[in-house]
Amino acid sequence: MLLSIPREELAHRQSKFFSIIDEKQIECAILFSVTDIFYLTGFHFHPTERPIGLVIDPAKQVHLFVPALEHEHAEEFALVDYVHSYPEYPGLRHPMEYFKDVLLESGFEGKVVGYDALGYGSSMGYRGPAVSEFLSAKEFVSLKGVIEELRFIKSAAEIELIKESCRWGNLAHRLLQKYSKAGLSEIEITSKASNEATMAMIETLGPEYKPHGYTAMAIFRGQIGEMSAFPHAVTQNIVLKKGDNLVTGAAACVWGYHSELERTMFVEDVSEEQLKYFQFMYEAQEVAFRHIKPGMPTSSVEEAVQAYFKENNITHLTQHHTGHAIGLLGHEAPFFDLGDHTIMQPGMVFTVEPGIYVRGLGGFRHSDTVLVTENGMEMLTYYPRDLEFMICR
Amino acid sequence: MLLSIPREELAHRQSKFFSIIDEKQIECAILFSVTDIFYLTGFHFHPTERPIGLVIDPAKQVHLFVPALEHEHAEEFALVDYVHSYPEYPGLRHPMEYFKDVLLESGFEGKVVGYDALGYGSSMGYRGPAVSEFLSAKEFVSLKGVIEELRFIKSAAEIELIKESCRWGNLAHRLLQKYSKAGLSEIEITSKASNEATMAMIETLGPEYKPHGYTAMAIFRGQIGEMSAFPHAVTQNIVLKKGDNLVTGAAACVWGYHSELERTMFVEDVSEEQLKYFQFMYEAQEVAFRHIKPGMPTSSVEEAVQAYFKENNITHLTQHHTGHAIGLLGHEAPFFDLGDHTIMQPGMVFTVEPGIYVRGLGGFRHSDTVLVTENGMEMLTYYPRDLEFMICR
Repeated sequence: MLLSIPREELAHRQSKFFSIIDEKQIECAILFSVTDIFYLTGFHFHPTERPIGLVIDPAKQVHLFVPALEHEHAEEFALVDYVHSYPEYPGLRHPMEYFKDVLLESGFEGKVVGYDALGYGSSMGYRGPAVSEFLSAKEFVSLKGVIEELRFIKSAAEIELIKESCRWGNLAHRLLQKYSKAGLSEIEITSKASNEATMAMIETLGPEYKPHGYTAMAIFRGQIGEMSAFPHAVTQNIVLKKGDNLVTGAAACVWGYHSELERTMFVEDVSEEQLKYFQFMYEAQEVAFRHIKPGMPTSSVEEAVQAYFKENNITHLTQHHTGHAIGLLGHEAPFFDLGDHTIMQPGMVFTVEPGIYVRGLGGFRHSDTVLVTENGMEMLTYYPRDLEFMICR
Repeated sequence: MLLSIPREELAHRQSKFFSIIDEKQIECAILFSVTDIFYLTGFHFHPTERPIGLVIDPAKQVHLFVPALEHEHAEEFALVDYVHSYPEYPGLRHPMEYFKDVLLESGFEGKVVGYDALGYGSSMGYRGPAVSEFLSAKEFVSLKGVIEELRFIKSAAEIELIKESCRWGNLAHRLLQKYSKAGLSEIEITSKASNEATMAMIETLGPEYKPHGYTAMAIFRGQIGEMSAFPHAVTQNIVLKKGDNLVTGAAACVWGYHSELERTMFVEDVSEEQLKYFQFMYEAQEVAFRHIKPGMPTSSVEEAVQAYFKENNITHLTQHHTGHAIGLLGHEAPFFDLGDHTIMQPGMVFTVEPGIYVRGLGGFRHSDTVLVTENGMEMLTYYPRDLEFMICR
């Protein structure tokens, strides 16, 4: 059972990144994105006021820069050549002073320096100078988006972790559906389902399991009855009643990898009108599935879905694009959107979630996580989609 | 019962911000920080790939720029003069093209333009041009940190919301302690406590309650037994046993406002050695409390705590500063840290949480949320701190 990315794969990611900077004639690099640092090194970090950074020196030695609080943790988990740390932020001496020492000692002066950002970005009270204020480089070259693009195509190991995520989201959702009954309240249902799924997940996977995010959960987020027509609804512990439209969500993180499973369900019974919109939504998702194929732009999926909505005169009931890539972040580029022309390639993982929102009635959205394959796509989420399974009794 | 910031107070915040930009001879401004936009307008937004922005035009009219998905929500909740929206991101036309229209129509060309960032910052797949690439301003002037500093001093209404947060964190923690017994597992305990507290909170506060964050919860985050010595421990559903050291955490968001309550507890019994470190931690927190007074720099609190640790030869067992401000973010500036010389003022709210970490034994950290007053400080969290109440039986 795979519960993390093997170290050889982290090393391989680093080599790929080194080749890219070589091609760009960049001699050394600085990264501040916590997601990209995790991707390259396996070091997971919850950002607050304390900055971290990753440094690739001109000899391609990799240095991780962390607060002292994280030093031992970094030594244990990060695939890097050196760990450096500073006492604390703000500290008597600013962390960027220590960072400057690392850069100077590893030969950054006068070099062509690649960077994703010129300073650490955190809203939680951090302030500090830009690297360009304290380092004399020959040139600073932006690498923004370079690692994000490496992350577009998932490896076999990444797909396995996403599948593991789908498995426990599926369990949480199954329990959610089992406990969804008229007369019970949102929190009673979602907490019971989420806790039982989390217990099963942790007991099954054992101590090697690191969520690096949330454990198994299934929620409504207030999307119950008429409120399901609002994609920004929040939990208000509504009591379910017969005939309610429900829009669910279920997921679990596995070593930072996400998946997404959402279903439109009905309490005990479904009306003719609900059925009509359910079928439009169901068919829109089918249209999307049929258009997911390698070699085509992601926009072609959105175009097909929008054409379907237009034919059926329901464009005014839609509010968002058909889906987004998913992986280390819950939403990632590229997107199934008219303006995104990224070519689909095997290994890309997307959500497929065209939605219809009818005021006074409810919301209609299934979301599935799918993998682009050599010939088309594979469903990674595997919860039933058909109406007959969507009635909670 | 106050469950949100009154609109007059939002208007007052905007006036204060207008005065600051006037003083700086800035004619108009652009803000992208979702926290600061919420602070000024009451519009809460969960950032993904879709950018938002706030525009103060030269006539001091306030414009909120959102995705179409949020247009109605913004009209309902945001205290602004105009809401503008774009269809979707990436979209056929980039959101920044629509944003440019708003800027040009509201007279930004050739003006002195204040900004917190020159573009929207999100890791979730957003990319877009800097404002400086599409707007010809007379000058761009950074306003970074300006609203963050307005947020340093909490109003009476903000303090009330933080107290409301403390109340429900306290309940969650009380239930956590009640359910913490040898032989039970972490998730059983924390889920029962968190769910019961959340149910009580939502039923008590009613539909006007908007968490804009998480509802009541109490957790160990894996800080159980020897694992409590690691501030970065994660949940592994450890079963509690007699003599275990526990480090807890409890909180609840109220209209986006946070509080922090943490306790060091023991299962059934406490050893001589645990007692020794508990007392050091307890006294260190007392030292901090005594040094919190208006007019003194925040660094003086950290200096006093570090002096106490040094006298007792336990500096090597500490890993982080004494505390941080708290409010709309879980961690905010200023900090109780040697390098932070911000002058304490009445209305500032801080956590006080000096910690001691003993490998092989456990972690020792109480965290309380306190308010700086005219004469000293007031505890906002009110859970018992003394050893006699810290034994779970």
